[in-house]
Amino acid sequence: MNDPAPSIAAPDAACADRVGRYLDTLTKPPGSLGRLEALAVTLAGLAGEDFPDVTPPGVVVFAADHGVAEEGVSAFPQAVTAQMVANFVAGGAAINVFSRRIGARLEVVDVGVVGELPDHGVVHDRVRPGTANLAREAAMSRDEAREALAVGRRAARRAVAAGCRCLIVGEMGIANTTASSALLAALTGAPVSALVGAGTGVAGAALDHKRAVIEAALVARAPDPDDPLATLAALGGLEIAAMAGAYLEGAAHRLPLLVDGFIATVAALVACRLEPALRPYLIFGHRSHEPGHRLALEALDAEALLDLELRLGEGSGAALAFPLLEAATAMLAEMATFADAGIDDGATP
Amino acid sequence: MNDPAPSIAAPDAACADRVGRYLDTLTKPPGSLGRLEALAVTLAGLAGEDFPDVTPPGVVVFAADHGVAEEGVSAFPQAVTAQMVANFVAGGAAINVFSRRIGARLEVVDVGVVGELPDHGVVHDRVRPGTANLAREAAMSRDEAREALAVGRRAARRAVAAGCRCLIVGEMGIANTTASSALLAALTGAPVSALVGAGTGVAGAALDHKRAVIEAALVARAPDPDDPLATLAALGGLEIAAMAGAYLEGAAHRLPLLVDGFIATVAALVACRLEPALRPYLIFGHRSHEPGHRLALEALDAEALLDLELRLGEGSGAALAFPLLEAATAMLAEMATFADAGIDDGATP
Repeated sequence: MNDPAPSIAAPDAACADRVGRYLDTLTKPPGSLGRLEALAVTLAGLAGEDFPDVTPPGVVVFAADHGVAEEGVSAFPQAVTAQMVANFVAGGAAINVFSRRIGARLEVVDVGVVGELPDHGVVHDRVRPGTANLAREAAMSRDEAREALAVGRRAARRAVAAGCRCLIVGEMGIANTTASSALLAALTGAPVSALVGAGTGVAGAALDHKRAVIEAALVARAPDPDDPLATLAALGGLEIAAMAGAYLEGAAHRLPLLVDGFIATVAALVACRLEPALRPYLIFGHRSHEPGHRLALEALDAEALLDLELRLGEGSGAALAFPLLEAATAMLAEMATFADAGIDDGATP
Repeated sequence: MNDPAPSIAAPDAACADRVGRYLDTLTKPPGSLGRLEALAVTLAGLAGEDFPDVTPPGVVVFAADHGVAEEGVSAFPQAVTAQMVANFVAGGAAINVFSRRIGARLEVVDVGVVGELPDHGVVHDRVRPGTANLAREAAMSRDEAREALAVGRRAARRAVAAGCRCLIVGEMGIANTTASSALLAALTGAPVSALVGAGTGVAGAALDHKRAVIEAALVARAPDPDDPLATLAALGGLEIAAMAGAYLEGAAHRLPLLVDGFIATVAALVACRLEPALRPYLIFGHRSHEPGHRLALEALDAEALLDLELRLGEGSGAALAFPLLEAATAMLAEMATFADAGIDDGATP
């Protein structure tokens, strides 16, 4: 990418190997904690520490509007984006509840909401008031896409400065499953019919309409999948670009990135196309009920931790998965070894 | 069952319905928190409270030995049961780590360990020092099975008296996947080959031997699946009986029962055969890597919350799932409604 950006280091393979061997000395049959053990090895490799720490986590919710909302692709009116930002500020949304449960630092960033927002409790970093309607023109310019990426980078740096050891990014933006579906189709070549689902509640004829809008936009915009920045600019959205920027900056600071659902995974895919070295830093919190999510996960060769039929966004599913990361690090730090506990390990009959 | 036992009430369907409707007024698309919403409805119905509380949870680990260990069905020697109990007392096992993370009251109960245990930190309620070898004779008498059920009932009552609002039971007992597999085959008629797996690490010829031991025992013991107490007595184990008793008593006190892996699910199946009214109180924490667990879950028409390839036992997988129950209750108690937040709910265009 053209943006000047700190480079992303490869995970520490020696540390990961060491931790993998150490796990087999703990008082449990080798491998019996399954994916939690794999998670511990991953977290150690990312941090380059034998006993990594993931607390406190940082949650950043990027909010922005989408011009394509005027095509009637969402069950909710565009005004709900700003209303939900006010709800985040008041502490009443799902991501507020789940962030409190995991002791997260929660930040809400306006990357491009249409309309008035509370003065306080929101980081005002608006690139433009909503994208243009991708069904009629490019969602934004290449420069605006770069600016939105930089908004995300700044947010990740604030999380690092605040001491966060794991980063979750979420989003709010009416019609953003439309932009995400278009991006996923453009970047992977998957047919729109296979990946467009109900979003926040569209069904029947409205769902057919949503698919038709995306298919027509892909023909009209004809984004080049080998130019991920141009594709991002053509289809949006501002918050998706910011999420991608936050992932890239977080990885440059060696933070594990706990990815939320469909939109967050598409943002992660965009970011990986911009910088493939990002991929090892991505830990996938859950598989959502949105049909495109399965395809997005496959495109990243990813397996998610939870599968609870969630389809809310905001970072909520990643926040729900976070206790598993804490448990994995606690397992490493706190479990006794066979030798310490004086237990026959089964290896020496 | 013959045991005098408090009766188990049906969940409060009116409360569950009310909470289901209330969920649709919260600031999220209806149903978008998927299985977490279903969990909230279930917990409300079990407690009979619109805003149920699941904290603090109680974890009870029942430990006992199995005579069938002498057939060489486990990768670990029998002495490891007592050694692991000492590890639980010292706080170094996985269930200690995960119980601390969820703020659980952890109790370790000796239902029938062979050998010396620490004086303190263990509830001494031993029915007999290990079961008999189920390959050669009945694992225990019908009266001993009743006594072991009563050990579990007493433990559940202690958890209730201590203020626990959710119950997790775990186990430690070398060779207890053998007893569990035999029980599951006896109660469901499933072929042993389909449900016997690696346990804590048996493979190859040793796995074939384990299957052969179970198949021969089922022929020799010929337990009557319509008499679950006799089947439990014939095949064991003491800790499995205690787990079943704890479930039955916990449900009688309206506690949600968060079920661990293979052995815990088999104990739950035994308990449901003794008292079908138990079933609604069971919430399944995870699907383990042990092949029989899928069959045990199917026998209970159950879907698990997590699927992380765990196969440790001790209650560890249930403890890892507990934060989802907390999140479900926090969602109910803390999220704003559309009306409170002044948000268009999409229902009124």
